[in-house]
Amino acid sequence: MEKINIFEKFSKFTEHWEPKVIAEMNNYQFKLVKIKGDFIWHNHADTDETFIVIKGKMKIQFKTNIVDLEEGEMIIVPKGVEHKPMAEDECLVMLIEPKGIVNTGEKVSEYTALNDIWI
Amino acid sequence: MEKINIFEKFSKFTEHWEPKVIAEMNNYQFKLVKIKGDFIWHNHADTDETFIVIKGKMKIQFKTNIVDLEEGEMIIVPKGVEHKPMAEDECLVMLIEPKGIVNTGEKVSEYTALNDIWI
Repeated sequence: MEKINIFEKFSKFTEHWEPKVIAEMNNYQFKLVKIKGDFIWHNHADTDETFIVIKGKMKIQFKTNIVDLEEGEMIIVPKGVEHKPMAEDECLVMLIEPKGIVNTGEKVSEYTALNDIWI
Repeated sequence: MEKINIFEKFSKFTEHWEPKVIAEMNNYQFKLVKIKGDFIWHNHADTDETFIVIKGKMKIQFKTNIVDLEEGEMIIVPKGVEHKPMAEDECLVMLIEPKGIVNTGEKVSEYTALNDIWI
């Protein structure tokens, strides 16, 4: 039962688009990711995915619209929904999703990150 | 796919110890709660529970120690572990846990809040 300081954890890495695990609740993981630029279109067939913006601004493009998110804002992307995260400047984001979810969905690409990397 | 502003949601209620649901991810809920004073000892037999401090300071007392939490800090209370949340001054907290969890565990008391109240 140790507390976790979110900003202290963000200070432990610099790379973009490579989520790091900071906590586990049942079979769900809390991950931190630094994002900058455009990610790829993808979806997660079997699960919803939560984005919480901790610092900065980001956008999530859907097939029909774009949602702008800033610090203190969150969104749940429903399972199966195609989405493309992006950020003009670096943005710090918390992700919450079941353990084992691949960041690029079923599309393996240069953006596919190693899973279950704890910091 | 609408975004949720966490502080805007906090502005919608004033009562203490009565969690409000703001989002659902699979069968999990994101809840906001304003806390002040001492809660009761309780546990959740079947699930871990996540606390994220959004504003202010709180403590969680366990049988063996007390954890101090402030803005930007979080803790996962493992299932079955007795705990007692408290806050000297009002503190704004996000809870993440499976849908249907009763805030006081199996102990029904004056602190038992209605479940699944969305704001």
